[in-house]
Amino acid sequence: MTIKPLADRILIKMEEAEETTKSGILLAGSAKEKPQIADVIEVGPGGVVDGKEVKMYVKKGDKVITSKYSGTEIKIDGEEYTIVRQSDVLAVVE
Amino acid sequence: MTIKPLADRILIKMEEAEETTKSGILLAGSAKEKPQIADVIEVGPGGVVDGKEVKMYVKKGDKVITSKYSGTEIKIDGEEYTIVRQSDVLAVVE
Amino acid sequence: MTIKPLADRILIKMEEAEETTKSGILLAGSAKEKPQIADVIEVGPGGVVDGKEVKMYVKKGDKVITSKYSGTEIKIDGEEYTIVRQSDVLAVVE
Amino acid sequence: MTIKPLADRILIKMEEAEETTKSGILLAGSAKEKPQIADVIEVGPGGVVDGKEVKMYVKKGDKVITSKYSGTEIKIDGEEYTIVRQSDVLAVVE
Amino acid sequence: MTIKPLADRILIKMEEAEETTKSGILLAGSAKEKPQIADVIEVGPGGVVDGKEVKMYVKKGDKVITSKYSGTEIKIDGEEYTIVRQSDVLAVVE
Amino acid sequence: MTIKPLADRILIKMEEAEETTKSGILLAGSAKEKPQIADVIEVGPGGVVDGKEVKMYVKKGDKVITSKYSGTEIKIDGEEYTIVRQSDVLAVVE
Amino acid sequence: MTIKPLADRILIKMEEAEETTKSGILLAGSAKEKPQIADVIEVGPGGVVDGKEVKMYVKKGDKVITSKYSGTEIKIDGEEYTIVRQSDVLAVVE
Repeated sequence: MTIKPLADRILIKMEEAEETTKSGILLAGSAKEKPQIADVIEVGPGGVVDGKEVKMYVKKGDKVITSKYSGTEIKIDGEEYTIVRQSDVLAVVE
Repeated sequence: MTIKPLADRILIKMEEAEETTKSGILLAGSAKEKPQIADVIEVGPGGVVDGKEVKMYVKKGDKVITSKYSGTEIKIDGEEYTIVRQSDVLAVVE
Repeated sequence: MTIKPLADRILIKMEEAEETTKSGILLAGSAKEKPQIADVIEVGPGGVVDGKEVKMYVKKGDKVITSKYSGTEIKIDGEEYTIVRQSDVLAVVE
Repeated sequence: MTIKPLADRILIKMEEAEETTKSGILLAGSAKEKPQIADVIEVGPGGVVDGKEVKMYVKKGDKVITSKYSGTEIKIDGEEYTIVRQSDVLAVVE
Repeated sequence: MTIKPLADRILIKMEEAEETTKSGILLAGSAKEKPQIADVIEVGPGGVVDGKEVKMYVKKGDKVITSKYSGTEIKIDGEEYTIVRQSDVLAVVE
Repeated sequence: MTIKPLADRILIKMEEAEETTKSGILLAGSAKEKPQIADVIEVGPGGVVDGKEVKMYVKKGDKVITSKYSGTEIKIDGEEYTIVRQSDVLAVVE
Repeated sequence: MTIKPLADRILIKMEEAEETTKSGILLAGSAKEKPQIADVIEVGPGGVVDGKEVKMYVKKGDKVITSKYSGTEIKIDGEEYTIVRQSDVLAVVE
């Protein structure tokens, strides 16, 4: 089964929060906060959204930082994913 | 009797939530959450909505994931349906 | 006396909720919920609304489903009617 | 003294609610609800409102139905009037 | 000292509420309500406001009716004035 | 150190409220209210703001009246300043 | 690891609040308030944001003042950063 996001939407999978010390990125380091780094699994085709042309610059495989609380959570094969709009993606991590 | 959605609206029927283990998609798996996968029954013609041209890319027969709580529920022949805008459709499931 | 809706407005009359079994449409079947099927009595001329050209595709005599709680209720000769915008009409029933 | 409404505004005077039986229109018939039929006393010139060209199609002398609670009430010579925008006028009564 | 309103703003001075009987306008006649008739003292130059060209049609010396609660009150030489946008002016009184 | 406001922003310094009797302007004269007259210290370059071209007509050295509560307060060398958008400037005092 | 802000976003690092006496800028000087001066670490490429072309005029290495509470905080290698939109940058400090 494949999830194909529509328009400017992106299917992402949050990375597990982990304790890192030197070179890892740990968003909101306490155990209680939701990690914000995610892997991009699928990217929508872009196109006209709300009457405006949207080009997709986020690619499948990117690691991204998203706004907290954005998007809709879904569950596929017991794994949790999130669908966000590209505009909810703040930065790409390289 | 036929329901013909207007403009950018789509008539969908939510799938029953079911316990799946390996390859099924179970959105919000607990019994209490509303499933988000739906079958597209009828699709409106698109056209100018709020002064903007909208093209319909969701098709009759598609399986779609929609935003929670979006749309208006109606009952036809004892079955529950929902009418949503195409912009409330997050992804197509293939 | 005639009510002539202005701009993109439509004068509708809600159908009475009734118990139907097989082929009837009963919206929100319980006795407490407001039925959502209505007969279109008069249709405004369309034109420029909020700076955008609106064409009327709902016709006098159509049976329509509208958003709950939309519109303004008025009483003519002891009968209740509602004035809604065409954009509050979700679907036409045929 | 004359009140000249500006832009897309209209000076209206609410009709007294009255008990009608057959051919009269009684909006929200109970004594407590505010009647919605009004006489148009003065009409503004239209023109550019919020950057959009507005044409006035409501005329002095029209009887109109307006949205409840819309407009600003003023008192002239002891009589109450209301100033509404043309877009708050739902229908003309003929 | 002179106050020069910017853009589409207007400096007005509220008239004192007074008891009038026949030909005077008394807005919200009770002693508690704020009068809505004001004298226009200074008018801004208009121009581009929020990306839209605004022309000033209210003139210095006009008597105007404004929306209640609109504008910012200031005090000059012990007298109270209000600065409103032209779009808060509902009507001119002649 | 210099503060260079960006886009349509303006660095202003509120004047001290003072008791004036005849020709001075005292905004919200009571000791508790925040004075609204300010000196313009630095002016941003204008340009495209929210996709709209903004021209700056407020100049360094102007005395201006601003909306209450608008802007962000900052402290430079122990003195308090405020950064506001030009659209929060209601009038120039001459 | 590098954080590459997208669109009109900027990665900034808040400066530590410090007691300054004569020529330093101390924003909201009390120990409790959040400092508002930040170093610009990375700048997004700009481009079309919400259908409007945005050019980046803030540069890597700039010291900037931002709106309080704007942006999303992230943690990299144990250090806190913030991602803001360029429009949340009020001024550049030189």
